This record gives sequence, C-alpha cells and structure tokens, in this order.
Amino acid sequence: MGFLIRSLNKQQVSTGKWFAHRSYTSDVTARAMVFSDYGQPSKVLKMHSYRLAPLTSNTVYVKFLASPINPADVNMIQGAYPIKPTFQKLGDQELAVGGNEGLAEVIAVGDDVNHLKVGDQVVMAKTGYGTWRTHAAGPASDFQLLPKVDVSMIQKATMTVNPCTAYRMLKDFVQLNQGDYVIQNGGNSAVGQAVIQIAKAWGLNTINIIRNRPEIDQLKQELKDLGATHVVTDEELGSFETRKRIKGWVGDRPPLLGLNCVGGKYATDMARYLGVNGQYVTYGAMSKSPLSLPASLLIFKNISFHGFWVSKWAELHKPEERYAMFEDIMNLMSQGKLKEPKWTKVDFEDEIMKKSVDLGISGFSSGKQVIVF
Amino acid sequence: MGFLIRSLNKQQVSTGKWFAHRSYTSDVTARAMVFSDYGQPSKVLKMHSYRLAPLTSNTVYVKFLASPINPADVNMIQGAYPIKPTFQKLGDQELAVGGNEGLAEVIAVGDDVNHLKVGDQVVMAKTGYGTWRTHAAGPASDFQLLPKVDVSMIQKATMTVNPCTAYRMLKDFVQLNQGDYVIQNGGNSAVGQAVIQIAKAWGLNTINIIRNRPEIDQLKQELKDLGATHVVTDEELGSFETRKRIKGWVGDRPPLLGLNCVGGKYATDMARYLGVNGQYVTYGAMSKSPLSLPASLLIFKNISFHGFWVSKWAELHKPEERYAMFEDIMNLMSQGKLKEPKWTKVDFEDEIMKKSVDLGISGFSSGKQVIVF
Repeated sequence: MGFLIRSLNKQQVSTGKWFAHRSYTSDVTARAMVFSDYGQPSKVLKMHSYRLAPLTSNTVYVKFLASPINPADVNMIQGAYPIKPTFQKLGDQELAVGGNEGLAEVIAVGDDVNHLKVGDQVVMAKTGYGTWRTHAAGPASDFQLLPKVDVSMIQKATMTVNPCTAYRMLKDFVQLNQGDYVIQNGGNSAVGQAVIQIAKAWGLNTINIIRNRPEIDQLKQELKDLGATHVVTDEELGSFETRKRIKGWVGDRPPLLGLNCVGGKYATDMARYLGVNGQYVTYGAMSKSPLSLPASLLIFKNISFHGFWVSKWAELHKPEERYAMFEDIMNLMSQGKLKEPKWTKVDFEDEIMKKSVDLGISGFSSGKQVIVF
Repeated sequence: MGFLIRSLNKQQVSTGKWFAHRSYTSDVTARAMVFSDYGQPSKVLKMHSYRLAPLTSNTVYVKFLASPINPADVNMIQGAYPIKPTFQKLGDQELAVGGNEGLAEVIAVGDDVNHLKVGDQVVMAKTGYGTWRTHAAGPASDFQLLPKVDVSMIQKATMTVNPCTAYRMLKDFVQLNQGDYVIQNGGNSAVGQAVIQIAKAWGLNTINIIRNRPEIDQLKQELKDLGATHVVTDEELGSFETRKRIKGWVGDRPPLLGLNCVGGKYATDMARYLGVNGQYVTYGAMSKSPLSLPASLLIFKNISFHGFWVSKWAELHKPEERYAMFEDIMNLMSQGKLKEPKWTKVDFEDEIMKKSVDLGISGFSSGKQVIVF
C-alpha cells in the first residue's frame, strides 16, 4: 500500500482532495523506532510496525523523507529531557516514537484541511512529535508547511533546531548593527557554524571560541572558510595577550551578544569580553558545569544572562512567525550563505538505528547523523 | 562666616536672590573628610578645611545636614569601587571627599539658578559627589531637589541608595500583580527591609531568606513586624520540607522576581524557587562568592539574570523620573509604610569619623551610621 500511495502521489499532487478521499479506505503501515520505557537507547529502542489511524476530514498522512538524530532525542529516550515524549497507542501498545526533528511530505489530506495539500513538505509544529518513522497520521496542526525554496533535503530536515536557534539568538536579544561583534563558544558546533554563517550574511563579525585540540589550525581554517572573523581557543581566552588581541579587534565596540553552549570556567571567561549592557545567551551546557557569574558582571557591567530553547520559542510564537524565519533561513541556504551541514546517512533498520542513536550520546565526529527513509 | 550664612538663611529663605548676591563676597569655610590616596580608611582619611569657591551665577552653596556611611563609600576609599572618586583642588591640595549619599540644604544660589532656591533640601545628582563635608559649592545640576514631604532627616539622608534600590528592583524587571510573590535573600539588609515594606505597601507578598544565626526567631519576628510574609533561613532553603512549604504558600504562582545580594550556593538555591520566565536581579555579593547557574534554569525555565546598580540607574534617567520615585517613596514614609532605618549618630570629628568608617567594613550591627552635622 505504501507503494501505491507513493505512486499516486507523484501523479496527483494537484488533486489532493480526490486523493484524500481514496485514502479513507487505504491502510498504510508505518514502521517506527519506538520505546516504551526510558533507558539507554540501544536497550529500549525497537522497530515497530503499526497501521496508521484512518484518515479523517481534519487529519493528514505524511511520509517522512529525512530525520536527524539530535542529542536531545537521546536525552529524551533516557528520560532526561524536560519534554517527556508522548506515549500513545500505536497498534496495540503504548509507545513513544523517537526523534523530534524531521522533514516529511504530505501524502493525503482530509476534506476540511485547507492549508496543506498533497506534495507539500512539512516539518513538525512542536517538539516531541516522534520523527523516526516512515509515516504518520495526525491533525494538520501537527505539521508546519515549509516555504518553497530550493534547498537540499538535508538542509530542510536539519533546519528547525540548529539554524533556527542561531537565527533567533542573533536576532532577539540585542539590536546589532553592521560590523558589530558577536562572541560565542562551541564555534564548531552545529549551532556555532550556523551562527558564523548567518552573522556573516548579516554583516556581523564573530569571535569564535573552540576547544583546544590536535590539529587546531585546520579547524580554525575551516571555520574561517565558513565566515568566522576570528577564532580563538578556550585556553587562550583568559590570557592577557588574548585580551589585548580581542581589544584590538573590537576597539571601542566590544561584543554586546555572547552565545554560550559550554558552561564552566571558559564560559565565565567569555562573559568578561562583553561590553556594558551586553546580553549573554546560554543554549547548552556541553561541559556539564554550571555557569559561574561574578557579581561585578551583573551589577557594574549590567550584563544580563538569558537562556534560549528553540522548542519553547516555537511553542510561544505563531506559525506565521516561524514560517517567516524559515523563509529567511532557506533563502540564505539557497544563496549558498548557509551551507548544508556535514552529515552521514543512517539507514532506517533496527540494528543500525540502535547503534547510531547510542553513538549520538558520544558526539558526531563525522557530522550529523540523518536517517534517510 | 558659617554662622552668618546660617542665620541669614533662617530669615531670608524666601529671598534667595538677594541672599545670593550677598554671598558673592562671602567666604565659607568647609570642613571635609578627605583622602589623597586609596587605602584603609582610618589610614588615608583626614579632616581638611578649605574655603568654598566663590559663588557664580550658575552655582549654589549647600550645607550638609546628614550623610550616612555606606559600604560602597568604604570600597571607594579602598580604591575597590568601579566609580573612582574625583580628586579635585580643595584649597591647595588634590583631594577626594568621602561619602556618596547625603542630605543638604541650599544656603545660597547664583543669579541664573532657577530650579533651586535657598532653603530647598537636596540630594546628590550623581554617585561620587563627596558628602562627608559641612558645605559644598557647585553647579546647580550637581544637586537634585527633594519633594516637600514631611519625613525625617534620616529618612531623606538614607533614601537614595537603599529604598531607591528596592523600589526600582520591585518595579522595573517584571510586571507584578496584587498577591504575587517576590523572593529575596539578605532579607534583613537595609535594601531587604525596604523591599519588605514597599512590597507590602504595594500588595505583594515576600519570601525572605536570612542567614541562620543565634536568636533567629527574634529576627524572623522583626521582619514579620515590618511586613514580611514569610521568613526562612538560608540553610533551610535546599531542603525538601522547605520546598514543600514554599510550594504550599505560592501555589501555582511561584515568584517571578528574585532579589539577590548574597551570591554563592544559597543564591543558586533561591533561583530554583523562581517560576518559568522569572527574573533574578543581583545587586550585591555579601558572600563574595560568584553566582552559579545550572544551565537548566536558563534554558528550560527561561529565567533571566540581571544586575542592578542604583548609581547607574540615576545616571541613565532624567531628574524628573528620579523626583517621581522620591515622591512615591517619601509618601510611603510619611504614611508610616516605610520606616526610618535603625541608625546611630556619628559626630563629624576626625577620630570619630575614622573609627566609624573603618567599622563600616565590618558591618553595621547597631544600624546604619549617619553623620549628623
């Protein structure tokens, strides 16, 4: 049946309504990577097949094209994420589907669905949807239409977490003008790389802090090739020489925006580079150490410290605002200003998936893992 | 001559202009507690006499009525405060005058001074003025007129730092509604007591954290008598029982404003009591330990951390705004809702001053020290 839908889909993109009617009687079997208890991914995950609920006048069917494996997905399976997955009846069991981000294509729409049609590409409206599956059925409001901009499937599938986080942090915390500096740590993280590129596209300069490591010069060069203005290591950060160098770069315009995904000592060092009234935004804690703030930064430099969580942002803002952001980001992508991230393909097979998700805990040295269905 | 001015002043309050003319030729000798180098107050402070500069058309003469000794004054003499005192020619030496806060009375005005007249009571327009002196001469813009509300001299002399800090923090960081909770540490500090009283006057509830100590029950009662809704010790803060108790008090309206003058572990414990989107304002660091922030408070609870410094506020806002705040605060005082702080009189004599300022480093167990001239 999956095959039938796919082939019909190709012929009938423009006649979704008719197709929708046909679908009422169709039965689509979805395969999903699910769990019924929290734990280590390879221990609790399993592949599960179930029939989609019948299409109603208000629901749509989607098939997934590509879904990444993000660190938060792993935390969610471990039960360590503030959003708990939805355990729902899939076939005869109470299960949660792994994965939060993904790109899907609408393959059937109910009669009363107006803003989606067959052939539309969508992302999830909210975090916690469960994207590691071949198909899903649900209310049209579960999905958000993507603008029709010509960018790669991988770019669309990995846009809603990392590029959107970078975009909002650069836009929402302080008014930056051409030539202003932004300072960030985790400069080579997925968000960090998006920050570098979006900042560059917007005429902003970036000072990027990365962890010292072997072959540091090569990484520095890679980030500069992406558009980084300057790159320094975390260990250099506290030194007098670095202080002088950075002062030389920024002159009397010290960065008013700092982006932190690390925490710990180096995150405090970074905060000291912000100017008076600077805004410091934390979106991660890779070091697992808290952020330590000397009172002088708060009181006398009037630096404010915030957090950012893109899931919460999406929850609090209208789909139209999110659509506008997608359009901006995808335009940068199509202009070559925001590149496809490094990625490796993960096949949607039981054992491969388990290994890949376990690997997700220990980082993604060969780029982002993306399931391609 | 000081005597002459004072006596004329009493007779001629309403004819300041005439008096001002007279003053052009008068010479007033000021006595001031000064320093020419940073260091321990009793070592670097000395009493110095000098003649006021001649009155000009744009300047005024003031005589001081009362000036407190605040911790920041001590830090400034030690050279450890972000505002450096102004070293200026007083007589034949380059000196800085101690003290930042104080109440003065205008005793002479130049011809072109319109917004001040003889008999007006004023406070300093900016931090760093030097208030430990009997008289001063300067541009009218150095001084800010006080509203004419009937409150005590001590209340006026100690209003611009502590009550103003409390007022702004309660007003400027989050919109609070009747019955909402504010949580603060240092509940028995001068600012803490002002917070308790202003919050109560505005229909807000306070949870006040104080350091555990002997006779804790007596202090708890004192703060409740001032208007504190609840008082807990810092040590109780992290316990499950306290968590349950506080949850019982606030129900589904956790505090959205936290005020911190302590830092360190207990300040982090306090931050955990804030609700989602809470604002946490640091205005001091009594423990001298930094504030440690788990990323989850920033990212998932979206709590923002700010600093507040009343000197900076005064610098960035118009005298009219400050005047309106003074009026609000003084009205609360005159209605008995914001009480005169505990204080002890300090005589303006060399040795007494030195001892009192040194004492300022080790705290003010018998209340605020106020020089009465």
